[in-house]
Amino acid sequence: MSESEFGVDLNFGDDGLVPAIAQDAETGDVLMLAYANREAVERTVESGRAHYYSRSREELWEKGATSGHTQEIEDVRVDCDGDALLYIVEQTGGACHTGYRSCFYRTIEGETVGERAFDPDDVYE
Amino acid sequence: MSESEFGVDLNFGDDGLVPAIAQDAETGDVLMLAYANREAVERTVESGRAHYYSRSREELWEKGATSGHTQEIEDVRVDCDGDALLYIVEQTGGACHTGYRSCFYRTIEGETVGERAFDPDDVYE
Repeated sequence: MSESEFGVDLNFGDDGLVPAIAQDAETGDVLMLAYANREAVERTVESGRAHYYSRSREELWEKGATSGHTQEIEDVRVDCDGDALLYIVEQTGGACHTGYRSCFYRTIEGETVGERAFDPDDVYE
Repeated sequence: MSESEFGVDLNFGDDGLVPAIAQDAETGDVLMLAYANREAVERTVESGRAHYYSRSREELWEKGATSGHTQEIEDVRVDCDGDALLYIVEQTGGACHTGYRSCFYRTIEGETVGERAFDPDDVYE
């Protein structure tokens, strides 16, 4: 696809990635932060399901493809500089691989404030 | 300060930075995404005002120091991997230098959906 496929210009970094925040459409909770390359953004827009790029596994990644904890896209927002994305999603289950609904389940003081959504032992082998 | 100054371990990237999301404590809106180095996180926690590190200016940056659009910290959250932060803030004025309340004021289709908070001509010379 061409550069103009999106209605706004995206500025991918030197590594070809932009950070993508997932926010719960219902509660407004910030669920996670991951990264997306151009293909991940394309697939997200086309499929209506959140896709990211895993920096550790170096591959495109559809959220929930393994766990079932998918993110249905309600809207994709772009920031003023075009170098960050906001996925507004309907989250099935929990966003965090630890079993919490949100990856941001701890305060910087170390207190756990997040809500458990599932038991990771039941989801990941 | 030592590594153990925070209650959780933070994993700064090779560039010494972690992405920091600012979320409006009142509305839940995601306001902006910027970056923080260790000193920015320390100052944020100590002062109760959001600090970041500007990658373009290569300097520590207190949000609102110039514009007056400060972010009072209500809570700082850390994600599961310790490589992303969530600042929950009381935002004065608008977070975006364009005058919008949130930097995520556009959809990826190019539609403007954000709310104007101020006229940037009145704030930045």
